[in-house]
Amino acid sequence: MTRGHRNGTRVSTAARVSQLLIGRPLRTSQATSEEIGSIEGLPALSLDALTSVAYGPEAILVVLAAAGAGALHLVLPVTLVIIGLLVLLVLSYRQVIDGYPRGGGAYAVSRANLGPKVARVAAASLVVDYTLTVAVSIAAGIAALTSAFPVLTPETVPLCLAMLAVITVLNLRGLGEAARAFLLPTALFVVGLLAVIVVGLVHPLDAHHLQPGASLVARHALTAVSVLLVLKAFASGCSALTGVEAIANGVPLFREPRVQRAKRTELLLGIILGAMLLGLALLADRFHVGPRAGDTALSQIMALSVGRSWAYYAVSLSITAVLGLAANTSFGGLPVLASLLARDHEAPHLFAQRGERLVYSRGVWVLAVLAAVLLVAVGGNTNALIPLFAIGVFTGFTLAQTGMVVHWHRARPAGWYRRAALNGLGATVTAIATVVFVFSKFTAGGWVVVVAVPLLVLLFHRVHTYYDTAGAAMGLGTVPAKPRARATLVVVPIIGVSRVTEAALADALSMGDEVIAVSTVFADDPDAPERLQAEWDAWDPGVRLAILRTEYHSLVHPIVRFLRSLEQQPGRRIVVLVPVVVPRHWRHRLLHNQLDLVLRTALARQPGIVVARTAFRIDEEAGTDG
Amino acid sequence: MTRGHRNGTRVSTAARVSQLLIGRPLRTSQATSEEIGSIEGLPALSLDALTSVAYGPEAILVVLAAAGAGALHLVLPVTLVIIGLLVLLVLSYRQVIDGYPRGGGAYAVSRANLGPKVARVAAASLVVDYTLTVAVSIAAGIAALTSAFPVLTPETVPLCLAMLAVITVLNLRGLGEAARAFLLPTALFVVGLLAVIVVGLVHPLDAHHLQPGASLVARHALTAVSVLLVLKAFASGCSALTGVEAIANGVPLFREPRVQRAKRTELLLGIILGAMLLGLALLADRFHVGPRAGDTALSQIMALSVGRSWAYYAVSLSITAVLGLAANTSFGGLPVLASLLARDHEAPHLFAQRGERLVYSRGVWVLAVLAAVLLVAVGGNTNALIPLFAIGVFTGFTLAQTGMVVHWHRARPAGWYRRAALNGLGATVTAIATVVFVFSKFTAGGWVVVVAVPLLVLLFHRVHTYYDTAGAAMGLGTVPAKPRARATLVVVPIIGVSRVTEAALADALSMGDEVIAVSTVFADDPDAPERLQAEWDAWDPGVRLAILRTEYHSLVHPIVRFLRSLEQQPGRRIVVLVPVVVPRHWRHRLLHNQLDLVLRTALARQPGIVVARTAFRIDEEAGTDG
Repeated sequence: MTRGHRNGTRVSTAARVSQLLIGRPLRTSQATSEEIGSIEGLPALSLDALTSVAYGPEAILVVLAAAGAGALHLVLPVTLVIIGLLVLLVLSYRQVIDGYPRGGGAYAVSRANLGPKVARVAAASLVVDYTLTVAVSIAAGIAALTSAFPVLTPETVPLCLAMLAVITVLNLRGLGEAARAFLLPTALFVVGLLAVIVVGLVHPLDAHHLQPGASLVARHALTAVSVLLVLKAFASGCSALTGVEAIANGVPLFREPRVQRAKRTELLLGIILGAMLLGLALLADRFHVGPRAGDTALSQIMALSVGRSWAYYAVSLSITAVLGLAANTSFGGLPVLASLLARDHEAPHLFAQRGERLVYSRGVWVLAVLAAVLLVAVGGNTNALIPLFAIGVFTGFTLAQTGMVVHWHRARPAGWYRRAALNGLGATVTAIATVVFVFSKFTAGGWVVVVAVPLLVLLFHRVHTYYDTAGAAMGLGTVPAKPRARATLVVVPIIGVSRVTEAALADALSMGDEVIAVSTVFADDPDAPERLQAEWDAWDPGVRLAILRTEYHSLVHPIVRFLRSLEQQPGRRIVVLVPVVVPRHWRHRLLHNQLDLVLRTALARQPGIVVARTAFRIDEEAGTDG
Repeated sequence: MTRGHRNGTRVSTAARVSQLLIGRPLRTSQATSEEIGSIEGLPALSLDALTSVAYGPEAILVVLAAAGAGALHLVLPVTLVIIGLLVLLVLSYRQVIDGYPRGGGAYAVSRANLGPKVARVAAASLVVDYTLTVAVSIAAGIAALTSAFPVLTPETVPLCLAMLAVITVLNLRGLGEAARAFLLPTALFVVGLLAVIVVGLVHPLDAHHLQPGASLVARHALTAVSVLLVLKAFASGCSALTGVEAIANGVPLFREPRVQRAKRTELLLGIILGAMLLGLALLADRFHVGPRAGDTALSQIMALSVGRSWAYYAVSLSITAVLGLAANTSFGGLPVLASLLARDHEAPHLFAQRGERLVYSRGVWVLAVLAAVLLVAVGGNTNALIPLFAIGVFTGFTLAQTGMVVHWHRARPAGWYRRAALNGLGATVTAIATVVFVFSKFTAGGWVVVVAVPLLVLLFHRVHTYYDTAGAAMGLGTVPAKPRARATLVVVPIIGVSRVTEAALADALSMGDEVIAVSTVFADDPDAPERLQAEWDAWDPGVRLAILRTEYHSLVHPIVRFLRSLEQQPGRRIVVLVPVVVPRHWRHRLLHNQLDLVLRTALARQPGIVVARTAFRIDEEAGTDG
């Protein structure tokens, strides 16, 4: 071996840039290095739910404001109904944790109990849900930022995309150090916001400082408050409940005793979220807060409670940070879901392959692109996404609860009847809520979800059907016949007589029983065949040269035709060996023909022909660059 | 052979769309079907020069207007100097036609007489020149259109790009029917514009109808007219002389007697262009025309001569059409130049390959992209491109004339001294003009050319150096050793036991003396090796299986490492045969792993290893779609 390689230490520039962003490959043993406790479960799995206070109450106010300032007081009763639903969901999901200690997302529970078809609906809902969570969380996070610093408002979309990019890169690196790093901002957010609420309830700023925030609302007269309006407000407000299921999906992440810790986290989440929602509803009612452009309802409530003080800015920034982390939670979810779907042959298998950082990087990329499209489509406006949001989430809730009813009915542990009843109640209520959402939100954007979910279900079905067919064709699960050797003919496309041709023919002679060199010549150079043949005969490499004349200007078609004519004689294995000149530097690639790529494409549909390439490397040490 | 192919009749969708736009492949014998006469030489080769009346006079006025309305009368003397230069150039280029009857572009003449280094400068100037001609012609063509129909003005850039797209597609189809189709619009343009000029000179519209057009100018007081100003006006006006060299480049296109016909066309061009420039300068002077936003000087002159009558609109539309055809002329030029450069190893060889329509399609694409970038960069504004324009053109003029002096000096035909003197005068005058352009236009955009030309020269040099090195490494021009066969080891990466594996092993056994199957298993599935080995032993295909355990999540790296360890034993040819599952429909591609692509990339820099792929085709006739 004269041309040595540097024993694997040479790394391409692209790989180096990628390593800088994503980090070095991880060993499999470096995975699952971290297990979490009950408190750490909040930042790791509950941020989506906790941070929904940043958009849930506002979503209610936006709907109510349409009916005039007088309707705003309905925020309190609507919120109380939602809190009731929260209690039901928390209890239901504590039972899911009991039933599926190895992690029971809506997809897993539906698949186990309701069959693969229903599970597809759950999976489709979850895909929509994860994507929307990312988009809504980022939009709301940037809204919190631009409310605090209005000068940033014109940059809303770029800021959203920048935040998305940071989260994507962090996730491509792997979630390793996540939960512990998330603890501090989560604590700041929870404690800070609860403190602001308490101050607002007990001792708000002097009334003289209050700026009544209902600029958008004041223009409307009070109109009749219809049932539909209340239902719409409820549907929008239910966006505050998204993410309640995440803990049940993530049970395996907890330290032993897992189930107890996870259930404790779920309870903690319910208490904190309920308290925040209640407090914010009381304050919104007291301060007559309405939706305002450029200032979120939450920001108004905070400013009215503690003024635009350091506390306001600190909590605002923590809200932005924690919403970013909430988006991050979905990045933990969708790729895992996609890998489960891939393992069940419902999604392309490539989603089941881990990247070198041990994360399901394809899923991360897909989620990032989908979220970016959504954010750009709505211009980073949270409220434009809310009508899409709850439909998918509540479809998942309903399916998971229904699946649990079947689960208890099958497993019949002690007291299963009571447990089944609770999950059944949850399923019924969330099913009703889902129907309410679809009807009240259809024209406002809900149709997107109503269209997307069936399309995804169809996609999963088609993928599954294809894998079934392909598996049968590939004889998966059966023992194939024994492989048998055949005589081999190697065809080598060449351009002229050179060391490249020599090396390729040497390879070809090593691989086949018979070797033919072929060369395409164009009719507009009538002397070419004789010239080439003379050169060939002078060299006399011991291999026959077939000169393919063509009337058309294509190097490839004559070779393909020649190969087809060879194929007429059966019993022979045909190998096309394409010599490829490989320069040392990538930028010189363009200077050599890419015949191998063209031939590969042309022969891709040609079964029975093996396409091989042999590299002839050029080391231009004498070149002009170092 | 059971799996038949449809004997070459199946065409992919992409190929079908491409054929619709570009046309079916042409036979080589279908090329060079057309030869042209003296009159047809005008539309075929002189449109660039003729149509420069659409922007040349205006370019003078723009410069003069900066010094106030009083300076506008200088348009006449400046134009007279330019016409003098035109006479000199026409005479000089008639001599080029004599000297290079096989087509003597600045590149060919410089290379033959001044050596490859100077020729690189000429080639670089020409590349800049062709690109600018396309951009300027299209911008001026759309300006003529928007002057006639001001409602279109806001769509200037999209209109420019649409015109460029049409020209690009026509050129990808091949220039076949060009010259004859161009005759009618060219005649309409020449006759129409000359008629308008005559009417304007003899019997313009009544003075009451005249709208003095100098709105931009009126605001300036007359300032001192400096020498620099006159030089700048001259430099800008010389953009009217671009394209004078095109006939000399295209001599081979003429019918015999070629030289006589080409010289006659050159003369005809000089007379018509000179007459138009003179007439327009006289009218601009008489009507006190100045530059106006949204109405070109030419449009103003025409409107003042014949009113906004049918004649005005007819000539305006013919100007737009003919400017489009002028851009088309460059599309005939740059790709041919690029192919010459490629043959001289100064540009990537792929520019020397004709596409299936027998045109140098890569050159067409490059020109289209460069022109699009320029048009977007200046927002379709002709006058922003003028300062860049003449520098490259006149550099080419100077080099071609200098080369001719050397040519005459070497060949010494009868009267060579007189001929050399004429070309020498041309070289001197155009060299002075080039220096004037660079200095007077540097800050206005000329620097772009001053930077681009040396960069292109450097690029040609680097490409040439690389091809020299590569040619030496490939032993071009020497007779290589005879190829010798060696023992071959075929390595087959597999995933499991299936018909795909069977087919691949059968191929491998046909190709090599020894075969090893390899499979990568990850450390996080500790049972995988035993499971796989048991399956393998049960099948017993007569081939050894190497199971590669890896701590990292990469299928490829373990295989690459394994291959490197095999390479340590010299004397063996190593072939990696990758089984690839190929579905019937492209959209199913994503559903199978692309291990071959990844391996190919990873092994691209690994000389001595042949990478082969064998396709296992899946015919899912039982699938859900037809």
